[in-house]
Amino acid sequence: MPVIFWLVPIASLFALGFAYYFFKQMMSHDEGTDMMKNIANHVRKGAGAYLRQQYKVVIIVFAIITFIFAIMAYVLGIQNPWMPFAFLTGGFFSGLAGFFGMKAATFASARVAHACRTSLDAGLRLAFRSGAVMGLVVVGLVLLDISAWFLVLNWAIPEAEPGLKLLTITATMLTFGMGASTQALFARVGGGIYTKAADVGADLVGKIEAGIPEDDPRNPATIADNVGDNVGDVAGMGADLFESFAASILATALLGAAAFAGTDMQYNAVIAPMLIAAVGTLLSIAGVFMVRTREGATQKELLKSLGIGVNTSAILIVVFSLAILYLLGMPNFWGIWGAIVVGLFAGIAIGQSTEYFTASAFKPTQKIAESASTGPATIIISGIGTGLISAAVPLGIICVAITLAFGFASGFNFTDMGLNMGLYGIGIAAVGMLSTLGITLATDAYGPIADNAGGNAEMSKLGEEVRNRTDALDALGNTTAATGKGFAIGSAALTALALLAAYFEEVKIMIVKFLDQPMMLINNTPAIDAQFIDFIHHYDIHLMNPLVIVGILIGVLSVFVFSGMTMNAVGRAAQKMVDEVRRQFRSIPGIMEGTTEPDYARCVEISTKGAQQEMMVPSLVALLIPVVVALIFGVAGVAGLLVGTISSGFAMAIFMANAGGAWDNAKKYIEEGNLGGKGSENHKAAVVGDTVGDPFKDTSGPSLNILIKLMVMASVVTVGVAVSYSIF
Amino acid sequence: MPVIFWLVPIASLFALGFAYYFFKQMMSHDEGTDMMKNIANHVRKGAGAYLRQQYKVVIIVFAIITFIFAIMAYVLGIQNPWMPFAFLTGGFFSGLAGFFGMKAATFASARVAHACRTSLDAGLRLAFRSGAVMGLVVVGLVLLDISAWFLVLNWAIPEAEPGLKLLTITATMLTFGMGASTQALFARVGGGIYTKAADVGADLVGKIEAGIPEDDPRNPATIADNVGDNVGDVAGMGADLFESFAASILATALLGAAAFAGTDMQYNAVIAPMLIAAVGTLLSIAGVFMVRTREGATQKELLKSLGIGVNTSAILIVVFSLAILYLLGMPNFWGIWGAIVVGLFAGIAIGQSTEYFTASAFKPTQKIAESASTGPATIIISGIGTGLISAAVPLGIICVAITLAFGFASGFNFTDMGLNMGLYGIGIAAVGMLSTLGITLATDAYGPIADNAGGNAEMSKLGEEVRNRTDALDALGNTTAATGKGFAIGSAALTALALLAAYFEEVKIMIVKFLDQPMMLINNTPAIDAQFIDFIHHYDIHLMNPLVIVGILIGVLSVFVFSGMTMNAVGRAAQKMVDEVRRQFRSIPGIMEGTTEPDYARCVEISTKGAQQEMMVPSLVALLIPVVVALIFGVAGVAGLLVGTISSGFAMAIFMANAGGAWDNAKKYIEEGNLGGKGSENHKAAVVGDTVGDPFKDTSGPSLNILIKLMVMASVVTVGVAVSYSIF
Repeated sequence: MPVIFWLVPIASLFALGFAYYFFKQMMSHDEGTDMMKNIANHVRKGAGAYLRQQYKVVIIVFAIITFIFAIMAYVLGIQNPWMPFAFLTGGFFSGLAGFFGMKAATFASARVAHACRTSLDAGLRLAFRSGAVMGLVVVGLVLLDISAWFLVLNWAIPEAEPGLKLLTITATMLTFGMGASTQALFARVGGGIYTKAADVGADLVGKIEAGIPEDDPRNPATIADNVGDNVGDVAGMGADLFESFAASILATALLGAAAFAGTDMQYNAVIAPMLIAAVGTLLSIAGVFMVRTREGATQKELLKSLGIGVNTSAILIVVFSLAILYLLGMPNFWGIWGAIVVGLFAGIAIGQSTEYFTASAFKPTQKIAESASTGPATIIISGIGTGLISAAVPLGIICVAITLAFGFASGFNFTDMGLNMGLYGIGIAAVGMLSTLGITLATDAYGPIADNAGGNAEMSKLGEEVRNRTDALDALGNTTAATGKGFAIGSAALTALALLAAYFEEVKIMIVKFLDQPMMLINNTPAIDAQFIDFIHHYDIHLMNPLVIVGILIGVLSVFVFSGMTMNAVGRAAQKMVDEVRRQFRSIPGIMEGTTEPDYARCVEISTKGAQQEMMVPSLVALLIPVVVALIFGVAGVAGLLVGTISSGFAMAIFMANAGGAWDNAKKYIEEGNLGGKGSENHKAAVVGDTVGDPFKDTSGPSLNILIKLMVMASVVTVGVAVSYSIF
Repeated sequence: MPVIFWLVPIASLFALGFAYYFFKQMMSHDEGTDMMKNIANHVRKGAGAYLRQQYKVVIIVFAIITFIFAIMAYVLGIQNPWMPFAFLTGGFFSGLAGFFGMKAATFASARVAHACRTSLDAGLRLAFRSGAVMGLVVVGLVLLDISAWFLVLNWAIPEAEPGLKLLTITATMLTFGMGASTQALFARVGGGIYTKAADVGADLVGKIEAGIPEDDPRNPATIADNVGDNVGDVAGMGADLFESFAASILATALLGAAAFAGTDMQYNAVIAPMLIAAVGTLLSIAGVFMVRTREGATQKELLKSLGIGVNTSAILIVVFSLAILYLLGMPNFWGIWGAIVVGLFAGIAIGQSTEYFTASAFKPTQKIAESASTGPATIIISGIGTGLISAAVPLGIICVAITLAFGFASGFNFTDMGLNMGLYGIGIAAVGMLSTLGITLATDAYGPIADNAGGNAEMSKLGEEVRNRTDALDALGNTTAATGKGFAIGSAALTALALLAAYFEEVKIMIVKFLDQPMMLINNTPAIDAQFIDFIHHYDIHLMNPLVIVGILIGVLSVFVFSGMTMNAVGRAAQKMVDEVRRQFRSIPGIMEGTTEPDYARCVEISTKGAQQEMMVPSLVALLIPVVVALIFGVAGVAGLLVGTISSGFAMAIFMANAGGAWDNAKKYIEEGNLGGKGSENHKAAVVGDTVGDPFKDTSGPSLNILIKLMVMASVVTVGVAVSYSIF
């Protein structure tokens, strides 16, 4: 094993160390007045209660799945013996990252509000570094888990046929992505339902029926709403990207092991993605320190402050990754480097396109706002129309990205000869896109922290100057949230495609093991070509096979059903919240006068329970469909399923996120005084659009990121079922 | 050529003869009062004006495309010399069918209203038989075109290698589907935009702003609204199903020619789908005569009256098709017959599922109606949620149908050995589903006729008894419209899958012609197996090829962009209508008092122009994308494109049609007195849902039927581009 590998655990320890440092630094700040402490405490308790409840469910699910995997590994022999443990650690570390991230976020909000009493810069830095806790914990724990497993397996698994050892190691490690995926499923879906049930419920009764403003402490659901930002946008987003980060590295390692099997470059190809992620992490830490601003900064300047940190890291990783590839002595390192750069740029471009389609500074959102003039129906029609069209840009970008990434890495050889190298290129492009996740995730987690700080300031009735500062931070958070969402979806799609390629490798490995077919590991020779034809032919994963087509149709079906279920889940859970808020207004005297504190805890509990109940069925759908399709339609059906899910899920996720974001900002655009301003008929219509957009952008849309990755992961770990037990 | 083939032209002449008979019979009825005549005349003139305008555009487009095809055929040599002519006749006959169908519908409305003054039965029979004119003209002209071309080509094309003659004939004939497809594109997209621009515009100003009821003659847009029903639901729907009917028969003929190449069954396999369609047509005529009812019939009884006609035809075709296959002496005729039955049942099941998800008698729509209690936002959320989930059922049905159809025909051999027979099975399932189109289309066209009769009765202020009768007929029409829409989408999807299989055959034929590879036509031998592997390998149409994945992503992208564009088109065109209606209310004195007739013609003109303008960009997208993808990504990219378009387009079409239908009926459910009834807050929220649903169910949704078929047809006719000129 090359010595340079040790950079990975070192980067991991750096990330975790700095996360601890930022956390301690944040904790040393004061939480402000008693009122501020009280509110922060309510939110913290609510978030903690939710997380405990969720982990209870997760533990049961993990116990069941681990049991099934143990049977597959030890009884049926269709998985390797390490796999149940890899699965568990993946889930554990992802859960841990969510726990720490949310802890930091909920401790930060009052402190950020208090810091804003001093200066805007103090507020920004504190909020951003609290967000960086989440970012660095996520990447640190992923790198820690990867390093540990790689060292253990490298020591434990004996050399067999040339090249087979690393294939086995990487295939085993990939299964820890399943643990992260399962954890992310519950965090994203549950968190997404929670946050929007609380938000929609709070708005429908509070804003519309009772006529009190947002974040008003008289609204019983307002604490639940603030808790929701933490469980949905911090913990959910974190778990989502934890999985993308881990899966992109692990899938690429496996693709590297396959592409360079039998050559002396195999080790280097396997650790290359890990090294790039490690260096990206170190650069992210450096980037975090660059973020600062001056008092009275405009939105543009604030955005620039964040941009300096993020962009510097991105530019440096371009340079450093070329150096890494050169040092590793990779053949065609220019091509592989090209793939990394393509991935990085694709991520940035997708983020930009999301901003274009959702920010009120641009035409699409303004046109949506204008269509409010003929009522709520037309604003909905135009939001959906524009949202659907907006899916074209990220899809187009990914099309270009995979064509170029494959092309650069394979020398634009799209025949089977270029296949192994090309797929490695797609994987490493995903790693490139996610390499500086430490800092991009910090900007994502910053959003809800600033939002909560604003809520805290509002509820604690801090002065207008402070409120203006938290508002400025919050508005910045909305912009980063939009680009962050686009980035999360884009990286999920590219990761899923890398996983798909890894799935085919897993099938090949299974063939070797169970069908006793010879596996030829010498790359780019007629031998591997023949083996490939054999593979295609054996499983008929081509488009003339009706099983493939049926699989694709089921994939599309899954996306539609899953989105519909999560939409309806929010509707139902919000209804319960509405009933509860109405009940409290009716039966607790003194709430509206502000003399009695409403029963916040009850609303938190209702959202928690509602989310837990509602996430079960969609989660089961996501976990079971790949297995059922494998049992009936075999490898061909599963291959189709994954392609159908990834392609349509990606488009649907973008559509939903962008339509929702655009409605949100169209409403804000009107509230800023355009088209009649607050209270006008246009504004009322825009509020309807915003409410419809809530589950679009924060529940169904982001949940699809999980679905597309989870479906592939679940297929990867149950590949033995498709190979050995399918009906057709 | 077997003598039994002559059944096809005979059935065609029967269909056209009875269409003429029903038309004459309808024309012999009286149009009623002067007021009734006047209104009918307005609608007729408006519809005629629209159609003339549309045909002007269509002629230009056809001239351009024919020119391009001529170059492909005579200069580049990548198409056969008959192809430009086949293209033209397809377009011409489809246009002719739309023209006659709409003529009949617009002549019928006042006459049906007048007949309702006599009895319910008189009204139903007249409306249904007027709808049958459309149904029979469509199937009659398709069969006529097919018979004529088959006779001509059979005479003109010489025998070459064994089996090659029929392959050439069927491949040539398939191209006339492109003409029908292009015509349908403009009819469906243009008609869809027209009808909803008028409807939404009329509702927004008339119902909501001015507070006058639907179909009130004081509303300047009301005539345009009634014209819209004719151009969208009669001409558009007719052109859509004209294409499905033609394409399913022609694709299956080609698949038959391929599956039975080199055997003495080839002729029989080619004419089998034609014969089934011919017999289904004769049975449809018989079915039309069975539809009658008694005075005071309930909705259920009325539905049963239609059901008797439709179901009798369906049951008889099951029996007759077995006889046909037996007479033709087809090998495995039980299996092929099984595929036909599967197709028929799938069509019925999809129609039923549409009814379940959209009729107010069932839970889904009732739940949507209930969610109106928390305002327009929640009714939109729950409609979208339920609409998305509802896509699962038809997709699931099609999955089962293609698995069984392929399985029965191939003896459940999903390897390459069963491929040719299995694909023939999928094609013949589509033919089975559409075999009794004559009568199912009659029930579809009946809907807008009844709707217009109701409008006429309302505007002419006929007595309440008459109005009750037309209302009963109209309500029945709404139910048939829902199932008809589901059937149209389902048959479009299955037809598109058959066309996809035909595309692969076309690619093979191209290989023979241009790449000078030998083509072995003996079925089910190692020779064809080897040739198949060669084919797969040459074009890499497997899921590990990134070009296939890129193609699939572009397919999904096309569906989203196309839907978004048509949604926005309705929004913009409706806005123009709103402005015009507002202008008339403002500037023409006496409108609201009913003393001055509004300027109906101006509204018709605005809708016409709006529709023509707005349909250009989406139409260009649909026509150009397959060619561009072929030029860049070649056969692999196109194969992916088609699969991506069909799978996601099918799901999206169902989602949109069902969500729209459910909102419509949720509103009607409330209007019937449930949940507060007309005028309540719930009702207002439901009206918003209904308005959003209008472009969903009548523009974007149905337009997707066209998109998925047109993309495949365009790829089929330009297959030479993908084979000879692609970059990758």
